[in-house]
Amino acid sequence: MVAPVGSRLVSTLITGAAGMIGRKLAAQLPQPDLVLHDVVPFDGATAVSDLSAPGEAEKLVASRPEVIFHLAAVVSGEAEADFEKGYRVNLDGTRRLFEAIRKESYRPRVVFASSIAVFGAPFPPAIGDEFLNAPLTSYGTQKAIDELLLSDYSRRGFFDGVGIRLPTICVRPGKPNKAASGFFSGIIREPLSGQEAVLPVPETVRHWFASPRAAIGFLIHASRIKTESLGARRNLSMPGVSATVGEQIAALKKVAGEKTAKLIRREPDPTIMRIVEGWPQNFDAKRALELGFRADASFEEIIRIHVADELEKTPEPGRALG
Amino acid sequence: MVAPVGSRLVSTLITGAAGMIGRKLAAQLPQPDLVLHDVVPFDGATAVSDLSAPGEAEKLVASRPEVIFHLAAVVSGEAEADFEKGYRVNLDGTRRLFEAIRKESYRPRVVFASSIAVFGAPFPPAIGDEFLNAPLTSYGTQKAIDELLLSDYSRRGFFDGVGIRLPTICVRPGKPNKAASGFFSGIIREPLSGQEAVLPVPETVRHWFASPRAAIGFLIHASRIKTESLGARRNLSMPGVSATVGEQIAALKKVAGEKTAKLIRREPDPTIMRIVEGWPQNFDAKRALELGFRADASFEEIIRIHVADELEKTPEPGRALG
Repeated sequence: MVAPVGSRLVSTLITGAAGMIGRKLAAQLPQPDLVLHDVVPFDGATAVSDLSAPGEAEKLVASRPEVIFHLAAVVSGEAEADFEKGYRVNLDGTRRLFEAIRKESYRPRVVFASSIAVFGAPFPPAIGDEFLNAPLTSYGTQKAIDELLLSDYSRRGFFDGVGIRLPTICVRPGKPNKAASGFFSGIIREPLSGQEAVLPVPETVRHWFASPRAAIGFLIHASRIKTESLGARRNLSMPGVSATVGEQIAALKKVAGEKTAKLIRREPDPTIMRIVEGWPQNFDAKRALELGFRADASFEEIIRIHVADELEKTPEPGRALG
Repeated sequence: MVAPVGSRLVSTLITGAAGMIGRKLAAQLPQPDLVLHDVVPFDGATAVSDLSAPGEAEKLVASRPEVIFHLAAVVSGEAEADFEKGYRVNLDGTRRLFEAIRKESYRPRVVFASSIAVFGAPFPPAIGDEFLNAPLTSYGTQKAIDELLLSDYSRRGFFDGVGIRLPTICVRPGKPNKAASGFFSGIIREPLSGQEAVLPVPETVRHWFASPRAAIGFLIHASRIKTESLGARRNLSMPGVSATVGEQIAALKKVAGEKTAKLIRREPDPTIMRIVEGWPQNFDAKRALELGFRADASFEEIIRIHVADELEKTPEPGRALG
């Protein structure tokens, strides 16, 4: 249960550790007794329980982990489809964790994985650090509420919280899924593996991205920064790469050639287009940049990271391919 | 249980009806079977229960009131002093009410009394409709969370909600209280009754005000506006009067003379000064103005309304005194 921070070791808990981000984060904190928690059993799990069930959060924090990465959540589509489950897991589960920490009366660092889904259209050209949270999904609402709780519990001194609003993670490894955002990864991931991918929106659509590697970097940095300068505003929009679908495709051509990019099949889907129109396109993540959070350099780098980490399984970024 | 709206009558419930605003609102909706609810028994109460206790909210909405004014809340000072009570009443109580409405499966208008406490310093010169909610109190946090729930429940179609962020109500009738904001009313109310009042901050302090009469007007207007144009952003900063303490005192002199204003005794209090520094001073309440919400014309009018409604008990505004 120890993770290296500078020269000393700190005990660490990760909730939602079975997810893609949880697994990658755990791989960067390779101590033998790190607590890896999820509601579903998984390879490497050290604690399996439902955080939203009474008494479970108390058990998890009884060992007083010094750093808690709270990643556990029902995803956007499921929270929209199942109203009660979304609120139970994403709001009540988080509140139970925060309450358990408060009652344990110690003051750990809590790193909360929030989302750009706390924002909803209409947007300014770039979303600044003082733009309102007006989510257009129940998932975004739940994350925005968790952010408010995180700030208040931190202000009260119950813990030392940092909420980070992750961009859309791209390229998401694994199989295609039915998430409305799935195509942003699919149009890169599938062609790189020789598979056809469907593009349901025009190339002019713009969105906000970070690689899995950048996301892990944000989480670890958030666990180590000094929080004095945050004041009462504990939630930060992370930096990212703003790219249009056209720019995504141009980067794919540069990395893997025209032939690979030809595997993208245009098949407009008005429903997906309507959903995507409500999503953030660009940010001015001034506070996070000042605090040392670092994004990927370009969408091309995002693709090269995917190739290196998922296709070649080498740990180093930026190897040229195309 | 019927209130006139245009030419027809709508059944109406007021929670927190024992409070100053609740009583004044009820007086403007003078039908015999209006449901007046509070946790404390009071003259005129038709329902007394703890909204945060399981099952109570369901009982309240079982009769399906078409308009619900949700005013019930633990005040700022108490929510800060008693963390658990604040969350239980201001968050859980509101959520139970919203859940009861959802499960009753009808779609009433819900008017929620929010507060400028959802905002926290640092501020722009005037807080616009897209400024973030970064409260500096647990009360403000709870109100901000309730606002998010109101928007999501409205978006989902469970009810038709409008949240209105009330300015500091001034002149608050009644006895002096120990709220940090109490002096804003005290320096007007006490001198007008021939009593001395203490001013704990410099005359340069600026704040955002509405008369009780304006607040009642906001609530009734919010129960009647068309909500189509609100979209998913269901919470509105109300218009008000931005005035410095110096301007308050100048208006008092104009209305009641120099001698009355001499009853204000300066007694600086660094603690109150520090609290007040975190409060909003000025708003650009564009959306609310476009929707027809109307503020008092000036701080002088705010004083004249107090004189008319509380000291002379005449219903008409604007009678000259000084």
